[in-house]
Amino acid sequence: MEPGRPGRLSYRALPTPGRQRTPVEDKALAKRASIDEQLAEIRRGAEEILVESELRDKLERAEAAGRPLRIKAGFDPTAPDLHLGHTVLLQKLKAFQDFGHRVFFLIGDFTGMIGDPSGKSATRPALTPEEVAANAETYAEQIFRVLDRERTEVVFNSEWMNGMSAADLIRLASHYTVARMLERDDFHNRYTEGRAIAVHEFLYPLVQGYDSVVLEADVELGGTDQKFNLLVGRELQRHYAQEPQVILTMPILEGTDGVQKMSKSLDNYIGVQDPAKEIFGKAMSISDELMWRYFELLSDRPIADVEALKQQVAEGRNPRDVKVELARELVARFAGPDQVDAAQQAFESQFQKHQVPEDVPEVTLAADEAEGLPLPAALKGAELVASTSEANRMLKQNAVRVDGAKEADRERRLAAGGSYLLQVGKRRFARVTVTEV
Amino acid sequence: MEPGRPGRLSYRALPTPGRQRTPVEDKALAKRASIDEQLAEIRRGAEEILVESELRDKLERAEAAGRPLRIKAGFDPTAPDLHLGHTVLLQKLKAFQDFGHRVFFLIGDFTGMIGDPSGKSATRPALTPEEVAANAETYAEQIFRVLDRERTEVVFNSEWMNGMSAADLIRLASHYTVARMLERDDFHNRYTEGRAIAVHEFLYPLVQGYDSVVLEADVELGGTDQKFNLLVGRELQRHYAQEPQVILTMPILEGTDGVQKMSKSLDNYIGVQDPAKEIFGKAMSISDELMWRYFELLSDRPIADVEALKQQVAEGRNPRDVKVELARELVARFAGPDQVDAAQQAFESQFQKHQVPEDVPEVTLAADEAEGLPLPAALKGAELVASTSEANRMLKQNAVRVDGAKEADRERRLAAGGSYLLQVGKRRFARVTVTEV
Repeated sequence: MEPGRPGRLSYRALPTPGRQRTPVEDKALAKRASIDEQLAEIRRGAEEILVESELRDKLERAEAAGRPLRIKAGFDPTAPDLHLGHTVLLQKLKAFQDFGHRVFFLIGDFTGMIGDPSGKSATRPALTPEEVAANAETYAEQIFRVLDRERTEVVFNSEWMNGMSAADLIRLASHYTVARMLERDDFHNRYTEGRAIAVHEFLYPLVQGYDSVVLEADVELGGTDQKFNLLVGRELQRHYAQEPQVILTMPILEGTDGVQKMSKSLDNYIGVQDPAKEIFGKAMSISDELMWRYFELLSDRPIADVEALKQQVAEGRNPRDVKVELARELVARFAGPDQVDAAQQAFESQFQKHQVPEDVPEVTLAADEAEGLPLPAALKGAELVASTSEANRMLKQNAVRVDGAKEADRERRLAAGGSYLLQVGKRRFARVTVTEV
Repeated sequence: MEPGRPGRLSYRALPTPGRQRTPVEDKALAKRASIDEQLAEIRRGAEEILVESELRDKLERAEAAGRPLRIKAGFDPTAPDLHLGHTVLLQKLKAFQDFGHRVFFLIGDFTGMIGDPSGKSATRPALTPEEVAANAETYAEQIFRVLDRERTEVVFNSEWMNGMSAADLIRLASHYTVARMLERDDFHNRYTEGRAIAVHEFLYPLVQGYDSVVLEADVELGGTDQKFNLLVGRELQRHYAQEPQVILTMPILEGTDGVQKMSKSLDNYIGVQDPAKEIFGKAMSISDELMWRYFELLSDRPIADVEALKQQVAEGRNPRDVKVELARELVARFAGPDQVDAAQQAFESQFQKHQVPEDVPEVTLAADEAEGLPLPAALKGAELVASTSEANRMLKQNAVRVDGAKEADRERRLAAGGSYLLQVGKRRFARVTVTEV
């Protein structure tokens, strides 16, 4: 207890791990990029930068002093199993690293080890230190596929928060008002809708903000949903007589469907640890429009290069070929450069074999309800063969597929009310809908 | 940190000072009073008891087990300078002691040592441990004029709160919702009026409630303004698997004016450390109605006795004589039994000398604005003397007072526009208002 020091936490007495571990402070900045070039890459794909003029100022002073900026991003300590959506933020951290700045990958294990103290949520179990350590390992395996290991410091806020007393937390909480907390969207909605907010939930943004104080962050990155918490950090740094951090929010990445956000549960994700072939195939499955979004948010290519690719497509280059380049980049990053060619070859031979053209003709054929439609008649009716005898020959040669599965039975009947994808050989397709007579 | 124990503070590991210091647990209860008699005295003057049936139950079980109840009241650690208003609560604690129960006089030094962490209020400086100790001494000097030293334990919540970690405070805060906090009158008003509430202010009622958990309080007493905080204690005890405390609120005592609450700044108080004569005189100055209120809230006399006194007055006894009994009781308690007779005598001789009767006749006399009214003419006009020559004789004998001050100057003139209390000898009074001709 420090009764004589109201209004100030003695955070300097706490370890500031970043400061101690890697003495890269005076290293020359890595990429020889002008401030404008840095800003352009940092701005790329970002949802919001608050305040950009402050960021420019920080970049200029960092350059003048030969001292890198301190970039912070916080991550959940629960079992990480990352997909490309998570790497949007990592990619932006990487951009800072490429310009020689220093990244603090902060694992919020302090609150993770508290879990859900109300005990109401079974989905937020309290983690043990062992679990935190294991999860940090899992993070490391994944994030260093994007981040530069040399310029990244993985820090745990338990390092300073476990040593914080209740009195210090009270002092910390005195720097923010209830009204401002209730301005946060989710708090506001829950409060006005009469859904419970436990008092400790007001303390978590303060803990996150205090992490910025301890790390003396120059910039904090987060998803758009993190904006409020990032602003708390700015505010607290002012209270602790620090220059407030610039905050940078990144958008949520759409999944491979191009509509909903990428998520495991929607099965529209590309996992960081997916096999090379899967990464390649999923990347090739996205729309041309989404491809440009992925280039913006996920590619290491400079924006100028991406603009050049767009120009080529506008002038007639097949977008599929550009997509191949994106897919190759992602496979190289996440599965390894040695996996790229094999993944592409596997995809293309698969593509040759089973690709269903986009313009499959639609045919409607009538059949007796009880009898159904004999398959040879269906093949002829859909004009996939010239005659029933050709149909039978194709069936005999194993050259017929129904809904992707080989079919050799000439007695096979298609039931009325159904719809079937019929294929003869590699190139002939038709979708047949069978109606009752 | 105890990551494996979300939702429960390990408060039992903290010292529970009350439990250790005085082994009065198995002492026989002091007064041989029935549960009904105890309840009647406890109920006396109380604003509210929540829940009375629970209190009865606790009293019965305490009696059956020969174990006293644990009674808690919290006090501010800032410089205590008590007046009778503060002793209303002490008096109720005393009632519990008289029935053999155990009182925890809790000094909230934990928050006192934090002070106003926002640094905005100069009126809440952070106390040093030395100041807390000195203030506790000052308390002791005063409160043991009311409380039984043997059955009182002065405890400091810094004893357990200084050892509390930020993580534990977060767990504690998880047991209460923001919406319920905002139901507290002052929070509600400030929030709706757009006046700031700092987040740490939500933590203080939780700290106070947690004190009840640590002390395993059976009953907590407080002023009516404390009701919300006392209820928080009830709620937290439930979370910590304790039987919830009964809460008892006492009203605010009116000052000697009988209208406003007793306070130093309104100068309508009787101080615990006032000289005997002052206590006696101030007590004698209160109205008959207020006298009964003071008997109810401040007297050690059983209610039956007080009712008997009321009966006597109804049957013609001079209420002044009853007031003397109250004044004597208060002097005995706060200045000491040996001071009582002297204080009463001093008061009465003073009273004999200077008492202004309540029914002083009012007289209005006219005078020339420039000249004013000669004092002898005023005395005659007010019929305090039979003639101007008697007036002059009285002036010569030093028997005349104007506004309480002796006056011997026969040329003294009373200015037009003024009002004067004139006195001749001990018994003759008149209030003369001089108007212009």
